[in-house]
Amino acid sequence: MTHIAPITDLHNDALTQRLQHLINNKTKPLGALGQLETLAIQIGQILGTEQPVLQQPQMIVFAGDHGLAARGVSAYPSDVTWQMVENFLAGGAAVSVLARQHGLALTVVDAGVAHDFAPRAGLQIRKIALGTADCSQATAMTPAQCEQAIAQGREVVQSLPGNVILLGEMGIGNTSSAALILARLSGEPIAACAGRGTGLDDAAFQRKLGVLRDVLARHADAVTPLQALAAFGGFEVAMMVGAVWQAASERRVIVVDGFIASSAVLVAAALQPMALQRCVFAHQSDEAGHGLMLKQLHARPLLKLSLRLGEGSGAALAWPLLESACRILREMASFESAGVSSSDQDAG
Amino acid sequence: MTHIAPITDLHNDALTQRLQHLINNKTKPLGALGQLETLAIQIGQILGTEQPVLQQPQMIVFAGDHGLAARGVSAYPSDVTWQMVENFLAGGAAVSVLARQHGLALTVVDAGVAHDFAPRAGLQIRKIALGTADCSQATAMTPAQCEQAIAQGREVVQSLPGNVILLGEMGIGNTSSAALILARLSGEPIAACAGRGTGLDDAAFQRKLGVLRDVLARHADAVTPLQALAAFGGFEVAMMVGAVWQAASERRVIVVDGFIASSAVLVAAALQPMALQRCVFAHQSDEAGHGLMLKQLHARPLLKLSLRLGEGSGAALAWPLLESACRILREMASFESAGVSSSDQDAG
Repeated sequence: MTHIAPITDLHNDALTQRLQHLINNKTKPLGALGQLETLAIQIGQILGTEQPVLQQPQMIVFAGDHGLAARGVSAYPSDVTWQMVENFLAGGAAVSVLARQHGLALTVVDAGVAHDFAPRAGLQIRKIALGTADCSQATAMTPAQCEQAIAQGREVVQSLPGNVILLGEMGIGNTSSAALILARLSGEPIAACAGRGTGLDDAAFQRKLGVLRDVLARHADAVTPLQALAAFGGFEVAMMVGAVWQAASERRVIVVDGFIASSAVLVAAALQPMALQRCVFAHQSDEAGHGLMLKQLHARPLLKLSLRLGEGSGAALAWPLLESACRILREMASFESAGVSSSDQDAG
Repeated sequence: MTHIAPITDLHNDALTQRLQHLINNKTKPLGALGQLETLAIQIGQILGTEQPVLQQPQMIVFAGDHGLAARGVSAYPSDVTWQMVENFLAGGAAVSVLARQHGLALTVVDAGVAHDFAPRAGLQIRKIALGTADCSQATAMTPAQCEQAIAQGREVVQSLPGNVILLGEMGIGNTSSAALILARLSGEPIAACAGRGTGLDDAAFQRKLGVLRDVLARHADAVTPLQALAAFGGFEVAMMVGAVWQAASERRVIVVDGFIASSAVLVAAALQPMALQRCVFAHQSDEAGHGLMLKQLHARPLLKLSLRLGEGSGAALAWPLLESACRILREMASFESAGVSSSDQDAG
């Protein structure tokens, strides 16, 4: 079992009250900035200040291949995983474009892609194996591989500067891993947890469901969060679990992308519930199980744009809202400083 | 009756097909960027190009006072309108902060505030009167004032550069105008159209509903869109109608903020339906009638963050998504250019 540093409760009543008071006295009706106000308070709590500044944001895209992909659970062949890694690094993928737009440093991590990459800037090669094992035949990874991947995920975060990470991923077949993890940890039927991934048609989706039911039955003994993670994969999910724990222990803000990144948070929070305090859920994707997963996490996502791409694209799209939340705290005038009358009904 | 230049149907099948083809061949599953893809196609259609570039975005905040405010329909006194105009110009309001964050030029228009402002940069004084008349006693404006306000709104847009405007507003009492316009043009009951504005409590909200019912009854003969606009106000809404028509006729992108800005679009589109093709609805606010209003407009908003501030704050928050949509079109690689395999199920 991997060693887990304790992640403490960062809730601080005095700071929360100061943040709430500060926001209530900004020149706007009480609560009128809605979810942006909740977000501002959360970021203030994470960074421990009334004047939060997000510094050197790091978009980290963890990539890995899946033995289960050979069973036809994805609309795309496994080769697309390494091809997309090349595309991320060349600047042509959605996440590359959006990271450039918002000044997010982009790091791609080879968590276990079935391909040998030439080393270069922006790529961290931390390959556990050339893809996970086919989890319809064996566990996707051994306990040792799972532990190793989590440790590597921690090290990725340690290697990067700043006080905020954005979590993205790439791995043909990994909506299956996320759906399996969700089904096992929530107890919900697989049909409520799995979706069409990158775009399966009806027949292929029914085949996927059949494969996933068999996988769940085969690994009926994988009941703890880490057993489920090892049984269903993937390496990129396990590394994100480590990344969440490391970032949480350093009190970095963690921006969670879509269905697969959320599945890593589901595992991470099952063992370290306080990690959730540091997580901002960027969006609810169109992947069928994501709504259920967010409900399990008691999360209210920022965006709902029918995205189903992964890569961290949703996290990047939500990014300016985090910046806005901090600026509202730092830059908006108060009723007093601006000489604006407060409400007839309350003291503002 | 004000002269209305015809706003043409800009839908172009050939361009739409080229835009759709371009997006479908980007390195992502078909449709995986959801609403961002629809937005990219819309902007491409408005600007008439496959490589849209948003230039010199103009945030325009129209401000005006309302005679009806004396009837206690708002939680705030009318003085807050001019005080907030000063706050916009001093840089301390939410819209000031968000416009600065995103590089949006901010123009405040005095459409009819009950206050004399000192001239300065960023302020256009186009006052029709020192607030509208109390529409529980008379029409909020005369037909001539309504026409004048619409003409001024056109001139505001003509005076500003760029190919995109963002519409915001400020006016204590103006959720009442918007609710009244919605009720009259949709035929829905006022209780479904009106909300708590900046934060009325239960008793005050019931009083507001009573006042609005009386106003509707008094102006039962105001049945056309422009008659309703003149009857219920306000000057800032009428100027936004003119701004929408002018921007639409110039094929600028129009980013619509919340409930009050949408009420101007409701009037503008009732007379010039093609104006809607140029409108991007930034968000669905928490103001009760906004959902109904968006439904009337067949609009799918980008954000839903429980905002209820106005000022253009929601438009500013949605702004980066428009930038992202354009960048996706311009900068993302295609399957072919990136050497990525397409789906097993379709040709990408």
